Amino acid sequence: MLPRGRPRAMGVAVLLLLLLLVIGFFLFGRDPEYGLGTTATLDGDLYGSRNLSASSPQLLLPPKCEVMLHVAVVCAGYNSSREIVTLMKSVLFYRKNPLHLHLITDAIARNILETLFRTWMVPAVVVSFYDAEELKPLVSWIPNKHYSGLYGLMKLVLPSILPLSLARVIVLDTDVTFSSDIVELWAFFGHFSGVILLWLDRLQQTGWEQVWKLTAKRELLTQTATSLADQDIFNAVIKEHPELVHPLPCVWNVQLSDHTLAERCYLEAADLKVIHWNSPKKLQVKNKHAEFFRSLHLTFLGYDGKLLRREPFGCPNHFPPGAEQLQQALAQLDEEEPCFEFRQQQLTVHRVHITFLSYQPPPPQPHDVTLVAQLSMDRLQMLEALCRHWPGPMSLALYLTDAEAQQFLHFVDMSPVLSVRKDVAYHVVYRDGPLYPVNQLRNVALAQALTPYVFLSDIDFLPAYSLYDYLRASIEQLELGGRRKAALVVPAFETLHYRFSFPKSKAELLTLLDAGSLHTFRYHEWPQGHASTDYSRWREAQAPYRVQWSAHYEPYVVVPRDCPRYDPRFVGFGWNKVAHIIELDAQEYEFLVLPEAFSIHLPHAPSLDISRFRSSPTYRDCLQALKEEFHQDLSRRYGSAALKYLTALQLSRSRA
Amino acid sequence: MLPRGRPRAMGVAVLLLLLLLVIGFFLFGRDPEYGLGTTATLDGDLYGSRNLSASSPQLLLPPKCEVMLHVAVVCAGYNSSREIVTLMKSVLFYRKNPLHLHLITDAIARNILETLFRTWMVPAVVVSFYDAEELKPLVSWIPNKHYSGLYGLMKLVLPSILPLSLARVIVLDTDVTFSSDIVELWAFFGHFSGVILLWLDRLQQTGWEQVWKLTAKRELLTQTATSLADQDIFNAVIKEHPELVHPLPCVWNVQLSDHTLAERCYLEAADLKVIHWNSPKKLQVKNKHAEFFRSLHLTFLGYDGKLLRREPFGCPNHFPPGAEQLQQALAQLDEEEPCFEFRQQQLTVHRVHITFLSYQPPPPQPHDVTLVAQLSMDRLQMLEALCRHWPGPMSLALYLTDAEAQQFLHFVDMSPVLSVRKDVAYHVVYRDGPLYPVNQLRNVALAQALTPYVFLSDIDFLPAYSLYDYLRASIEQLELGGRRKAALVVPAFETLHYRFSFPKSKAELLTLLDAGSLHTFRYHEWPQGHASTDYSRWREAQAPYRVQWSAHYEPYVVVPRDCPRYDPRFVGFGWNKVAHIIELDAQEYEFLVLPEAFSIHLPHAPSLDISRFRSSPTYRDCLQALKEEFHQDLSRRYGSAALKYLTALQLSRSRA
Repeated sequence: MLPRGRPRAMGVAVLLLLLLLVIGFFLFGRDPEYGLGTTATLDGDLYGSRNLSASSPQLLLPPKCEVMLHVAVVCAGYNSSREIVTLMKSVLFYRKNPLHLHLITDAIARNILETLFRTWMVPAVVVSFYDAEELKPLVSWIPNKHYSGLYGLMKLVLPSILPLSLARVIVLDTDVTFSSDIVELWAFFGHFSGVILLWLDRLQQTGWEQVWKLTAKRELLTQTATSLADQDIFNAVIKEHPELVHPLPCVWNVQLSDHTLAERCYLEAADLKVIHWNSPKKLQVKNKHAEFFRSLHLTFLGYDGKLLRREPFGCPNHFPPGAEQLQQALAQLDEEEPCFEFRQQQLTVHRVHITFLSYQPPPPQPHDVTLVAQLSMDRLQMLEALCRHWPGPMSLALYLTDAEAQQFLHFVDMSPVLSVRKDVAYHVVYRDGPLYPVNQLRNVALAQALTPYVFLSDIDFLPAYSLYDYLRASIEQLELGGRRKAALVVPAFETLHYRFSFPKSKAELLTLLDAGSLHTFRYHEWPQGHASTDYSRWREAQAPYRVQWSAHYEPYVVVPRDCPRYDPRFVGFGWNKVAHIIELDAQEYEFLVLPEAFSIHLPHAPSLDISRFRSSPTYRDCLQALKEEFHQDLSRRYGSAALKYLTALQLSRSRA
Repeated sequence: MLPRGRPRAMGVAVLLLLLLLVIGFFLFGRDPEYGLGTTATLDGDLYGSRNLSASSPQLLLPPKCEVMLHVAVVCAGYNSSREIVTLMKSVLFYRKNPLHLHLITDAIARNILETLFRTWMVPAVVVSFYDAEELKPLVSWIPNKHYSGLYGLMKLVLPSILPLSLARVIVLDTDVTFSSDIVELWAFFGHFSGVILLWLDRLQQTGWEQVWKLTAKRELLTQTATSLADQDIFNAVIKEHPELVHPLPCVWNVQLSDHTLAERCYLEAADLKVIHWNSPKKLQVKNKHAEFFRSLHLTFLGYDGKLLRREPFGCPNHFPPGAEQLQQALAQLDEEEPCFEFRQQQLTVHRVHITFLSYQPPPPQPHDVTLVAQLSMDRLQMLEALCRHWPGPMSLALYLTDAEAQQFLHFVDMSPVLSVRKDVAYHVVYRDGPLYPVNQLRNVALAQALTPYVFLSDIDFLPAYSLYDYLRASIEQLELGGRRKAALVVPAFETLHYRFSFPKSKAELLTLLDAGSLHTFRYHEWPQGHASTDYSRWREAQAPYRVQWSAHYEPYVVVPRDCPRYDPRFVGFGWNKVAHIIELDAQEYEFLVLPEAFSIHLPHAPSLDISRFRSSPTYRDCLQALKEEFHQDLSRRYGSAALKYLTALQLSRSRA
């Protein structure tokens, strides 16, 4: 028995083993498909160990491809939702069978994991969700130290929520990493059925529910315990019913430990199957196996999850939802066509991990505004300044590799400014393909904004310090709540100096403008982009004024969150915002310029994503082709009214 | 027999298998340590396959830890030197035994791989190098289409270069990826010894050398062949001596192929052991296994090699050279000390892959200069401009992750400017630790500069277009070749505008300076750094003039390549160049400012590495501590003469 209050890490492997049993007892049919290959006893040198002599005992492994393995995980909150990803990467890396995941989640984890698994599109993986709320009443009578402890206790009552048809299930905690095929663990069920079914009858007579509840109550009475964690109860049950426990070979529970037992396991085992250690930072340099554990954990932490979008080797296709259509669409692309890369990027389904870090959604307020933007690693240093300028909620999409997502996590942890801001939702979209999917990123951030209004900005812009308050006041004054279709324009400026003192007011901004320290945005290269905003009128304006759309207009706007999405066909750079503004105009949004609003673009070196494609000769041609298709689609949806956009574009081109 | 002229990919697995035999025949002792576990025949369902019933045949695997496995690879040139890294990562990921690598290399590969393995510091790996030149005469009589074909042919004569004491060796091509423990392949030796030793006698009588040479000569005569690749000869030998071939189970040679045979292997095999496919780009989307292959290959291509710096699990320590001292030094660091991270970073040995891309060393010229700089991923977009400004040789250290190194490769391939420049040597230093090891990077780049002089620059600076020619002329005029200790100062300027027209001459530069479009470098924040350069004198200067060192001086200089190295204790940012200039002054280098030389710093957002530590409160304290230690070391090395640096520093501090 493990002492109470031990770190959870110490107990979970016992838990894993016990649950394997527990669930087995309750849900096993008595039709063992896979029995022991020999009648030899199981002495820890099982299949998968190294030197198999003819006389050593072996478990039959179920054949690859056909047999579905069932895995259940209780997962609640933001941190566990990240942990489970690393667990699943390690399972998927080694697995050769189809998997059915049974995820018992709270609302937060469900929101995250539904999106993640939908976009991950791993073949031969089925995911079912179960509402952890339903299990709460069954365990909430047990005094528990932490709110999160309730989720641990839920493992006691899993059978009551999993489908009756489910015969066997492996229950895992989120903080383990596999270093072997999970089918080898599954094979233990065969062993149970052969050896421990004897006890099943007895258990069925008494009933597991009675067993653990009685034990828990007695513990509470006799041990004057004030709270019980799941592990405490398991320990107590094990103590009273040692016959329930079938020890797994030590390789299935390798922990960093100074115990002689663990040390002997390291030395004698040929192989390890599961490591149990989720905190590589708390590394004791003294333990000589620390490096090994750390390395395996970090392997999967930074592993590119899209590489796991593969059929189990040599198995017939198991397409996840949407994957077959996607594959057909991709197959129809012409690799020789010059815009192939653009079309391929547009069809790419990126894995999406919404609310990657802890997040407190904003309380519902009728005029609240979320700042929406997207960025990649090279703009991370903008975040602190942005947080200082925008005290309101933000929804940011980050385009990162799996390894970069870990760096990002560290970056936020280390930043005193970022780590305290719980109203910023970070959504990780995992990198895939050569072109920057700017509009797909914007749509992810937009979809996750929870306030009635959104400020559609870019990461290189810093809003006026007062902008958040001013926008909310403006929305209220303009009575936008009354379903009025309006796009509030925030005039955009830029500085070409990279050391720069940000203006505290419109008056200060105008002074800088007159001094030549500031310019209207892209005044030198592309004045058309913001010409309609009419900066000279804005100088004098005391009240919001309406402006008309004109060709190439791409202002930064505040709109209701149900506004049209960005067109994902525009990948890389160019026309991504222009098309969205046309869409707003086609849907008859009024453009209202706000007299006190402004936002300033800071200089930066061109990003790699931009410079890579600016120099490409086919880039302009492809962009042109995409524009034409966009206009055709507009005509289809808005009829002859949409002709004005095409005409305006052609006019502006003939003038140029 | 494979038809001649087939893609090499088709043949190499046969090669691998044959070589296993060939080398086995010649080098095997007849003392099989590991025999068949049963007397059953080997039918392709070997140990490591999935359903092991008690009656299926098994090979005994040698015990982990003790048995050293020998692997030989022929590796020549830049591309193979990259490929072998991915091969080795896959081998190391799964291995549990100590390995001895026998690398038969040309001078290029040896230079790269010696540095790589020395800095990789993988425990329980021994590397021996053999000069491929020695084997050339043995195979150069064979007509061959490509120069590189010679290296393929060398596999025919490997036994003549490997030590006689070597009993067994697995020969691998660089373009395979393992997905299993190489010990399982090693175990086949046991099988050979048991079953094929019979043929060893016969082979020994005739001799392999005679066999393949006769065959090759006959091929040349009868088939009117004009050239023979190694595979052609193996095929011919196999045809004449089919008894030499022992087929490996198909899982040891899984290739992307439309052959029915391969397809059946996919379906029947539970597992695959080695994939053979080094070109994920040339992916035929139609082949349903392509994703699987691609995924495994990319797994190791981007895998963080430092995670493989681990002892085989549960084995006693096998320290690579230097590792034990390093571990002791690390263990002596006090984790609670505020500067722990700095000291740890300073001790970190980064893996180094010198000349990561094809490179043509500059022809020896007595006054030639190499530009030396270092960068990380966020400065990659500087490279094209730098190449336009500096037409001479460069030695650049890049601080990258393994995955970023692949992106970098792609970036250079795609760039018309970079892909044609063969006089730029790129050295990849793999990321490890939170602080930017700026001086370690500079030292790597400096050590690889091959011209008599080096221009020690930074990546954000663009030199005057004429600088390369001007420097060479100046070196010649100043007769620096005569062992004169001189540091030629290149005055540094900066622009705060990120759109900027680069001055074509000193006259143009002075005009921009007077107009306020340019400034002397860090004029506003830190004039001390370049004060000694004496910009007002430079304006008028017609000839080089000597200046004296003063506190905080950090000019960009041209020095002989045997100049002092940078002090690696300065990691992160701050004092890294200052300390180097002090070192030059202490060694009595003359500082000579060149009247026509200049270099301009371009603006950029602060890098993540900088911003992460500027905000850290302990950062300044640690830097101060490092400075003090530096001064103590100076006194130790230069005696009382070094006191002037400390005094100057203290004086400047009391003034501030």
